[in-house]
Amino acid sequence: MDKEITLAGSTDSQLVDDVLTSFFARSKSRAEAMHPDYRTMWEHLETCTVGGKRFRPRLVMTVYSLLGGTERVTAATVAASFELLHTSLIVHDDVVDRDFTRRGIPNVSGTYRNLAAAQGSSPSRAEHAGLSVGVIAGDLALSNAYRLLGEVDTDLATRQRLGDLLDEAIFASAAGELLDVLAPFDPTPQPVEEVLDMARLKTAVYSFEAPLQAGAVLAGGDDLLVNALGEFGRCIGIAYQVADDLIGVFGDESRTGKVGWSDLREGKRTALISYAADQPQWPRIAALLADPDLTATGAAEVRELLIESGARDQATRLAADLTERALQALVEPYVPQALRDGLAPISDVVSERVRA
Amino acid sequence: MDKEITLAGSTDSQLVDDVLTSFFARSKSRAEAMHPDYRTMWEHLETCTVGGKRFRPRLVMTVYSLLGGTERVTAATVAASFELLHTSLIVHDDVVDRDFTRRGIPNVSGTYRNLAAAQGSSPSRAEHAGLSVGVIAGDLALSNAYRLLGEVDTDLATRQRLGDLLDEAIFASAAGELLDVLAPFDPTPQPVEEVLDMARLKTAVYSFEAPLQAGAVLAGGDDLLVNALGEFGRCIGIAYQVADDLIGVFGDESRTGKVGWSDLREGKRTALISYAADQPQWPRIAALLADPDLTATGAAEVRELLIESGARDQATRLAADLTERALQALVEPYVPQALRDGLAPISDVVSERVRA
Repeated sequence: MDKEITLAGSTDSQLVDDVLTSFFARSKSRAEAMHPDYRTMWEHLETCTVGGKRFRPRLVMTVYSLLGGTERVTAATVAASFELLHTSLIVHDDVVDRDFTRRGIPNVSGTYRNLAAAQGSSPSRAEHAGLSVGVIAGDLALSNAYRLLGEVDTDLATRQRLGDLLDEAIFASAAGELLDVLAPFDPTPQPVEEVLDMARLKTAVYSFEAPLQAGAVLAGGDDLLVNALGEFGRCIGIAYQVADDLIGVFGDESRTGKVGWSDLREGKRTALISYAADQPQWPRIAALLADPDLTATGAAEVRELLIESGARDQATRLAADLTERALQALVEPYVPQALRDGLAPISDVVSERVRA
Repeated sequence: MDKEITLAGSTDSQLVDDVLTSFFARSKSRAEAMHPDYRTMWEHLETCTVGGKRFRPRLVMTVYSLLGGTERVTAATVAASFELLHTSLIVHDDVVDRDFTRRGIPNVSGTYRNLAAAQGSSPSRAEHAGLSVGVIAGDLALSNAYRLLGEVDTDLATRQRLGDLLDEAIFASAAGELLDVLAPFDPTPQPVEEVLDMARLKTAVYSFEAPLQAGAVLAGGDDLLVNALGEFGRCIGIAYQVADDLIGVFGDESRTGKVGWSDLREGKRTALISYAADQPQWPRIAALLADPDLTATGAAEVRELLIESGARDQATRLAADLTERALQALVEPYVPQALRDGLAPISDVVSERVRA
């Protein structure tokens, strides 16, 4: 997620890092006892988590601390569990998208694809070997998300509520991933409601709702508070995705790190595109998007048409409205003012992204 | 696993079926609320488990019952958890092996590959879509193995020991799968010890050791009993694999359901091949195995050479020795006679397979 969001303090972050470092140390040592190549795979899996911003753990820790929770090592274990879930989802998402790099360096699949290629495998065999290791590594991250949560030292009821949140996060993101895989078979643009449902399933639940709620559950928050955080997370998570998709099309390439029209060329389903589909500019936009060799000139024309059709403004307004709705969910007396203030930076980031 | 092994009684099997049926009913209903296509995927995932023999659940139930356990619904939940683990591993193993059928019908990946192809996707895109859904479906089975175990109504210490067993099963089978993926890059036959280590990691731990031990842990068995069952499971699980590999090469095609030389053509690493690699017949065998177009005549020659070299006899003896060692692990007073008698059918099956 975004590097600009500053939430939990550095001591909390350090605690999460410590839990993960200790988890990986144990795993590497167990793996070493089985086979040196297995240890190496664990090292690559650890590398996947080290490069990230650990956004979900920070949500857990922020909510927990602001609600007065003091068992910070316990909270850090729950937070680390959400980080492993995230690792598992990105490793498997890269398998599904046949992506072999992440943040500009080879991911798990890329590392093993390159290894196989260097040892003489054909490109297609090397690619499949890489993806296969991705499947295995993601499985290990996923099962250890449960495992870490199982180690949390708390009462049975709390443990079960945390288990429910992790389960809901996995259940929803699998649905989002499935619908994404099946989507290309139907070239009609989806209604905007469906696009937002997808964003909720694929991102908002596991990246926002569940970690926020886990922090509250662990701090002993009641159902009204937990529900309010769920609503906040849902709205802000979807808003974040809408804003992110706007940046993907209109953003500065040097900031996004993507070619400015890769989302367009891939036919990514976004609120922006759904809005455009109802406008007279759509036939021309659709023709350009259908071109697998879309050029910079073509992409510039699509951008102009998206602005002219009002789709950009509609999507921008949607992100702002969702952000506003998110903040409205954080009402007193259910949500203490300190927590509301503490979560404001998240909505600020979405607002800034939309303005950018 | 094998249909000839009769273990737990039909009432126990019914209980496990009931737990799984109820789990899938809940999941399908939750999925339906997200999207009808998600419910459909859950239906396909359920189909994967219905066709199987539910061998691992039967191990859990058999040990638990023979040790006098009476909380049979609890045991059935643990048993169902191991079935979901198995489902997850075979679904992901099929992704890794790019297999689109299992037991003669399309598996999850095959079902979605066919669907994509019917909707006009190119063969390579359809294949990738199928494999992608396989990744997602396997993730859901895996996470729900943990989830079901978390629902088990037992004391904390027992729950943690059960969690350790599930964790060890996943940790070991991931290692086995990884080493399998990396193996083709090194064409030298492995020493027989390495082949047996692989068989242990990939199959024996999750299919034999862990379910046997889980039944004992749940019944309150002490460490000596649990360790004895682990040793039994390890030896019998490896013996089973050695026997299975012999049948893969020398067995009756109508019984194995495989083309009689597919294991040979794929260069599968087996104890049989490792033994042959030390014999004067090896260069000729290796030349035949390296042929991607190995014919029935070539396969018949390989079989003759494997017999002539003594490799077949060595592998047969190994399976018998391991079976004997397995039974010796089940010694009184640690292991009650009733349990020893109850587990005998498993070793009988291995013995029969070797003789067949």
